[in-house]
Amino acid sequence: MGMTMTQKILAAHAGLESVKAGQLIDANLDLVLGNDITSPVAVNEFYKLKLEKVFDKDKIAIVPDHFTPNKDIKAAEQNKMIREFVKEKDISHYYDVGEMGIEHCLIPEKGLVVAGDVAIGADSHTCTYGALGAFSTGIGSTDMAAGMAIGKCWFKVPSAIKFVLKNKPAPWISGKDIILHIIGMIGVDGALYRSMEFVGDGIKYLSIDDRFTMANMAIEAGGKNGIFPVDDTTVEYLKEHSTREWKVYEADEDAEYDEVYEIDLSTLRPTVAFPHLPDNTRTIDEVGEIELDQVVIGSCTNGRISDLRIARDIIKGKKIKKGIRCIVFPGTQKIYLQALEEGIIKDLVEAGAIFSTSTCGPCLGGHMGILAKGERAVSTTNRNFVGRMGHVESEVYLASPAVAAASALTGKITNPETVVAVMQNA
Amino acid sequence: MGMTMTQKILAAHAGLESVKAGQLIDANLDLVLGNDITSPVAVNEFYKLKLEKVFDKDKIAIVPDHFTPNKDIKAAEQNKMIREFVKEKDISHYYDVGEMGIEHCLIPEKGLVVAGDVAIGADSHTCTYGALGAFSTGIGSTDMAAGMAIGKCWFKVPSAIKFVLKNKPAPWISGKDIILHIIGMIGVDGALYRSMEFVGDGIKYLSIDDRFTMANMAIEAGGKNGIFPVDDTTVEYLKEHSTREWKVYEADEDAEYDEVYEIDLSTLRPTVAFPHLPDNTRTIDEVGEIELDQVVIGSCTNGRISDLRIARDIIKGKKIKKGIRCIVFPGTQKIYLQALEEGIIKDLVEAGAIFSTSTCGPCLGGHMGILAKGERAVSTTNRNFVGRMGHVESEVYLASPAVAAASALTGKITNPETVVAVMQNA
Repeated sequence: MGMTMTQKILAAHAGLESVKAGQLIDANLDLVLGNDITSPVAVNEFYKLKLEKVFDKDKIAIVPDHFTPNKDIKAAEQNKMIREFVKEKDISHYYDVGEMGIEHCLIPEKGLVVAGDVAIGADSHTCTYGALGAFSTGIGSTDMAAGMAIGKCWFKVPSAIKFVLKNKPAPWISGKDIILHIIGMIGVDGALYRSMEFVGDGIKYLSIDDRFTMANMAIEAGGKNGIFPVDDTTVEYLKEHSTREWKVYEADEDAEYDEVYEIDLSTLRPTVAFPHLPDNTRTIDEVGEIELDQVVIGSCTNGRISDLRIARDIIKGKKIKKGIRCIVFPGTQKIYLQALEEGIIKDLVEAGAIFSTSTCGPCLGGHMGILAKGERAVSTTNRNFVGRMGHVESEVYLASPAVAAASALTGKITNPETVVAVMQNA
Repeated sequence: MGMTMTQKILAAHAGLESVKAGQLIDANLDLVLGNDITSPVAVNEFYKLKLEKVFDKDKIAIVPDHFTPNKDIKAAEQNKMIREFVKEKDISHYYDVGEMGIEHCLIPEKGLVVAGDVAIGADSHTCTYGALGAFSTGIGSTDMAAGMAIGKCWFKVPSAIKFVLKNKPAPWISGKDIILHIIGMIGVDGALYRSMEFVGDGIKYLSIDDRFTMANMAIEAGGKNGIFPVDDTTVEYLKEHSTREWKVYEADEDAEYDEVYEIDLSTLRPTVAFPHLPDNTRTIDEVGEIELDQVVIGSCTNGRISDLRIARDIIKGKKIKKGIRCIVFPGTQKIYLQALEEGIIKDLVEAGAIFSTSTCGPCLGGHMGILAKGERAVSTTNRNFVGRMGHVESEVYLASPAVAAASALTGKITNPETVVAVMQNA
C-alpha cells in the first residue's frame, strides 16, 4: 500500500522507509513556532522540565501577534518574558513590534518553512504552511517546549481525505469560498485527525494566497493538516522568499484515502459561514438580510496582499456604509508597505475604513474591534464560535474578502456580484 | 480693574458686563464634549436626572477615542450605549471608527470650536482649544450631563498667570519643550484653578500645532485653562477649518495677574519630564543615560501633522534601534491621510516604526503599547504619573517629537542635535 503526500513527508522525517496511518512516530522538526499566548506557557514548561539548551536556535520562531502591540499589562508581562527567553537562548527568529506580523503570514514570507518540511506551532492554524507542500500542524505548548529542546515531536500518522478540485473557479470564488464550501460539506469534525490533501487541475487556478487560506482552515474541519502539491506557483513563491533548499514529495499512485471528494470549482457560489460554526455555511444566494455592525478584513486567513487588492477593487472610490466599522488588518509589515505602495491603504481609508498595523486584532476576541452584545460582524477570519470576537451574544459570519468588502459598502451581507453590477450600471 | 482674556470670554457668555476672579457664574456653552470613557457616565446621569432633550444637538460632540477600536467587551458595551444615545438624541457630531480621531485633534479640525467660544469637555485635556483663543476646560461627567441638557455650566471665574514668551525659539525647541519648561518651573500645581495666558512676541514663531500642545498641557500645571491671543496664524487655521463666526477677545491693559513670567524662548533647551510627574523636568543636557524599551509619538498633545513631520525628518532613511518598539499615533483620519500623502507613513514604517489608526492608545494605559514592569518609554504624550502607561513599576518620560524620534534611533533618550550632527558627519 502506498503513502499519501503527508505520510511520505512524515516517513522521511522519522527516518523510516514507510509509515502507515495510525502508526506512532518521532519526527525531526524543521521549525518550532510559538506566539505571545502560547510561548509563555511553553517557556514555563521548558524551565519546569529543567531543559537548558534549545536544539537549534535557527529552527525556532517566536512571533508575538495576538495581544500586541501590548493590549494590557498582562500582555506586556507575557511579551517581556518571551523577549528574555529569546535573548537567553539567542533565538534567531523573533519578531517584535515594528518587524512583526501575523505569524502564519510572516513565517512563509521569511522563508522559514519550505516544501517537504515538518513544522509544528503552538497555534492551531499552523496548518497554513501546507500551502507550500510542507507538513505543518498545531500542537500544545508542552509539545512546543519539548520541540524547542529536542527538535522532535511525536505524531500518530494520519490517514487522509482527497479533495479533487476541478476546473476554473467561477468569478468571485476565492480559496476562502472553496474551503468554506468544503467545511460546510464535511462538517467541523469531517476531517478529524486526518490529512486534507488537495489535488486536481483546479489547483493551477489558485494563487498561493488562496492556498494559504485553504490550508489555514483545514483545522476548522478538524484536519491534522491540509496540503497542496508543489507546482510552478509554489516554486515561484519559495524562490522569492526562501534561501533554503526544498524537497518535493508526491503521494504514491496507490496511496489509500478514507474518502475522495470531487469539487467542480466552476459551479461554486460565494459562501458564508453563519454563527456559530464554520460548517454552518450558506451560499450568498441563501443569505437573506443580515444587517451588520462591523466588517473585518485581514488575519492569518485573509490578510495577504491579494486579499487586500480584492477589497480595494470593490471599495475604491465608494464609501463604507455609515455606522459600519470596517477594520483592515494586513498580515505583515511587508504586506503593509506593499499595500501602501499600491495605494490600497489610501483607497480604503478614504472610503472610511481603518487600516491597522499587523496584529491578530479582534479575530480571537483579542483587541482592536471587539463586539458588544447583539452586534454582528462579517469577517474574513477563520472561526465564528460563540463569543469568538467578543460578547457571547455577538455573531460572526465568515466570508471572503470580496463578500466582506461588498458588505462594508451596504451594511449587510452582500454578494460582490451585485455591488459590481450596480457599479457598472452607475 | 480690567479683565483677563479668559474673564472677558466668560463675562460675555454669562451675559455680564464684567466678572472678577472668584465670582461664581453660569456661562452659556458653545460645545459640550465627551469621549468613550466619560460619555457613558454622563449618559447614565442624564437618564438618572430624568432629563429628556439635549439643549442643541449641533453643540454636542461625542468622540470615542480612548478604548477604540473596541479594546474589549466592556469597551464595546460602552460604545454601543453611546451610539444608542447619539441616535436617540440625533446628536450631529459623533465620530465612530473610520471617521474618528483623538478628540482634541478632531474637534478643532472639524471646526467645532472657534475663537471666543466657551467649551467644556469631560476630559481633562479639553483645555487644548485655548490655542484658538477659546475658553475651554475639562469638567466631570455630571457637568457634561447637565451641559448637554441645559447648555450652561457654572464656573468660578479664575484668576490668571501671564507668561510672556519672548524671542524666536532656539533650534529644536517646540511647543512641547516650552510647556514642559513652564511646568517644570511652576510645578504641577503652579497654576491651580488659574488661567495660563500666553502673550509676547515669541508667539508669532509658534505654529498652531505648537499652541495646541501648550494649551493641552495647561492642566498639567493645574491650570483651569491655557489661552493664546488670536493672530494671523489662528485666523488662518480658523478659516481653513470652520464655517462658524468667531470673536476675538483681548485682555484689558489693566488686567490683574497673580504672577507674570518672562521666558526667553531663544535660550530654552529640549526638555524632558522624568517619572513620575510632568514637572520633574530636566534639560536634554542633564538627562544622562536612560535606556528605553518603547517610543510613543502621537496623542492629543503631539499627534498633529507637524509633529509627524518632525519625527519623519529625523527618522527617514535610518533604522529604529533593534529592541525599541516605536509606535506612532496620528490624531485623526485626516492627519493619517496627510501623513500618507507626504510619505511619512512609508518613511516611518520602513524605518521599523508602526503606524496605528487614530486612538489614544497607550497614553493612559489604554491599549496598543502597554508597558511591563520595569519598562521605560519616552513619549510625546502629556502625563507620566505612576502606572500611566502600564505597570506601576514602569516609567514614562515626556518629551517632544524631536527628542522621541532621536531616541527611537539610539534606544536611549537622545538630543536631536546629536543625531542630526551624526547624520551630517556621516
